[in-house]
Amino acid sequence: MATHKLFILPGDGIGPEVMGEVEKIVGWFGKQGVASFEIERGLVGGAAYDAHGEAISNSDMALAQAADAVMFGSVGGPKWADVPYSKRPEAGLLRLRKALGLFANLRPAICFPALAAASSLKPDVIEGLDILIVRELTGGVYFGEPKEIVTLEDGQQRAVDTQVYTTSEIERITRVAFELAKTRRNKVSSAEKHNVMKSGVLWKQVVTRIHKAEFASMELEHVLADNCAMQLVRWPKQYDVIVCDNLFGDILSDVAAMLTGSLGMLPSASLGAEDPATGKRKALYEPVHGSAPDIAGTGAANPIATISSFSMALRYSFQAIEAADMLDKAVTNVLASGLRTADIKSDNTHVIGTTAMGAAILKEL
Amino acid sequence: MATHKLFILPGDGIGPEVMGEVEKIVGWFGKQGVASFEIERGLVGGAAYDAHGEAISNSDMALAQAADAVMFGSVGGPKWADVPYSKRPEAGLLRLRKALGLFANLRPAICFPALAAASSLKPDVIEGLDILIVRELTGGVYFGEPKEIVTLEDGQQRAVDTQVYTTSEIERITRVAFELAKTRRNKVSSAEKHNVMKSGVLWKQVVTRIHKAEFASMELEHVLADNCAMQLVRWPKQYDVIVCDNLFGDILSDVAAMLTGSLGMLPSASLGAEDPATGKRKALYEPVHGSAPDIAGTGAANPIATISSFSMALRYSFQAIEAADMLDKAVTNVLASGLRTADIKSDNTHVIGTTAMGAAILKEL
Ligand SMILES: CC(C)[C@H](C(=O)O)[C@@H](O)C(=O)O
Ligand SMILES: CC(C)[C@H](C(=O)O)[C@@H](O)C(=O)O
Repeated sequence: MATHKLFILPGDGIGPEVMGEVEKIVGWFGKQGVASFEIERGLVGGAAYDAHGEAISNSDMALAQAADAVMFGSVGGPKWADVPYSKRPEAGLLRLRKALGLFANLRPAICFPALAAASSLKPDVIEGLDILIVRELTGGVYFGEPKEIVTLEDGQQRAVDTQVYTTSEIERITRVAFELAKTRRNKVSSAEKHNVMKSGVLWKQVVTRIHKAEFASMELEHVLADNCAMQLVRWPKQYDVIVCDNLFGDILSDVAAMLTGSLGMLPSASLGAEDPATGKRKALYEPVHGSAPDIAGTGAANPIATISSFSMALRYSFQAIEAADMLDKAVTNVLASGLRTADIKSDNTHVIGTTAMGAAILKEL
Repeated sequence: MATHKLFILPGDGIGPEVMGEVEKIVGWFGKQGVASFEIERGLVGGAAYDAHGEAISNSDMALAQAADAVMFGSVGGPKWADVPYSKRPEAGLLRLRKALGLFANLRPAICFPALAAASSLKPDVIEGLDILIVRELTGGVYFGEPKEIVTLEDGQQRAVDTQVYTTSEIERITRVAFELAKTRRNKVSSAEKHNVMKSGVLWKQVVTRIHKAEFASMELEHVLADNCAMQLVRWPKQYDVIVCDNLFGDILSDVAAMLTGSLGMLPSASLGAEDPATGKRKALYEPVHGSAPDIAGTGAANPIATISSFSMALRYSFQAIEAADMLDKAVTNVLASGLRTADIKSDNTHVIGTTAMGAAILKEL
């Protein structure tokens, strides 16, 4: 049995609380002999800043590089509001994404039938919803240079961020989107603003070309990002896979996640390119939700998104498909039994806390 | 009675159809002696390109500059998909915004009680919704330089867009937001991505400073743009005025508009700075919806957003408050009578077309 190197970065806020439940599940899989894990733990975000003045240390970066998969909790909170820009909690996550080359961010937005009632949308609009946002994660305005604030002669300040995309960056994320759509409903919607942005013009051109050359039998649709946001609210089921740049993906995936009423349930995977020698990809798994400072420490956080992120790790990084199926089934069964954390409660359900939810899932395994 | 110079640019798609109904109403107000209008008409978008190869001609730009208000329909459509970038339909609108200095884009998102049923959201989430997005409209990634696609040595292409904001640009839009919040519920939410963008860092600093110095008694909240999009879907009534940059405003205002179920109803105003000499502002009024090529020519378009945009013109540019109230009331009465265009139909309503809706509103006046 191969040993999988797992690097765990709980982060800030509810991150350590939800990651604690994941650790128990990882331990259980290890003990059962389903898979064998070699675990390292590190600090990221505000926790890392408090410990050594950086959002992630070089030694933790080295451990992330060496790992088969990184499990990431969440970062940030009001405590670090005045930390210098380059040391802010988010810098740790952005450094990981960039250094590990995690260009493909997969964000499924699925409406769990048992949770449809928690959505602000009407049941017919979201019941059965299953879309996947494929967000480019290492380019665009997040990383382009110049990125600076300069003081002008008249004392004014001028802030600049730069959105940059090259042909090859767009090509590889497009391929990921189509390959994933192949395993789903064969439709890709590409969202950009080619009517305003040159990066949108290039994006649309490259997606169109890759589609024609490599995936012509599949459906491709182009949609303006603002219209896509609208359409997600109006009738999200029109989508299968949505592919978009880093910034649009940030917003569209949050909208899509919130539609489902299942925000505390949604995992994500950030994947690098396949190493031609080993066939392996670098990967980081994290919940779609953030560090939720308002409920941190209350024991109320929903651990399911992070547990499901580990299930994605089992599936995509460790090829432990059976274990992943088992874990997903345990989550489904617990929900079916009526147990809920506060964020997803509805009539006739029983509200429990983080550790009780983790324990219930473990018991189902 | 002062004569108001009105410049009408119907544009493309359903633009000319809905503007036709506005013209009838303008004519009626003129005949009644409620206000006196001097009307010029021009071409913009694809219509202008077809006529003279540019998205707007210099002579029409001069008429826009000379007008007290511009009434704008909508631009764009598949017919012009392959027009060169600088001549694409949207370029006409962007040139107008920039040349007239229309930095403040006001986009109310109101849920008309009679239309709540048309929303994809649950009634309790949107009933009574009344928020206002104040979008910066002449800066940011829409206009920053460089904005280009270059071919690299290896044959790849590299596209660049530049997000730029200066202190004074942020100051003036912040003031507009707070002044408007004063007439509403005294709360401003400022949306940016200071965790990723330097323009977000500056945005947050400047908004905080202006609030403290000039509007300290009012409520200010900072929200990350991705979270704001989520919160709009979850519980939009938490907001009063949302102030944000050009690109975030594009997306957030579309989300907010779609929530209401009243997209075909929503007007917008784009205002310039007050001229200290005359006390006047340049202004352009347009519906939030686009050119809807799919229904153009079918006579089904909803003219209300454009008619209400004219009502905003009466209010903000012509100080004809009574006339604006009269027009708003006529719209409300027509809706109350059960008449609907197809986009806002629901049970027990009667569906009519563009001209019948225009006529019904005129009859109510
Ligand atoms: C924490 C932040 C830097 C991050 C982003 O903007 O990408 C988050 O919003 C996300 O979507 O993962
Ligand atoms: C037509 C387009 C250029 C425009 C924009 O992106 O600003 C539109 O989407 C809007 O919101 O007015």
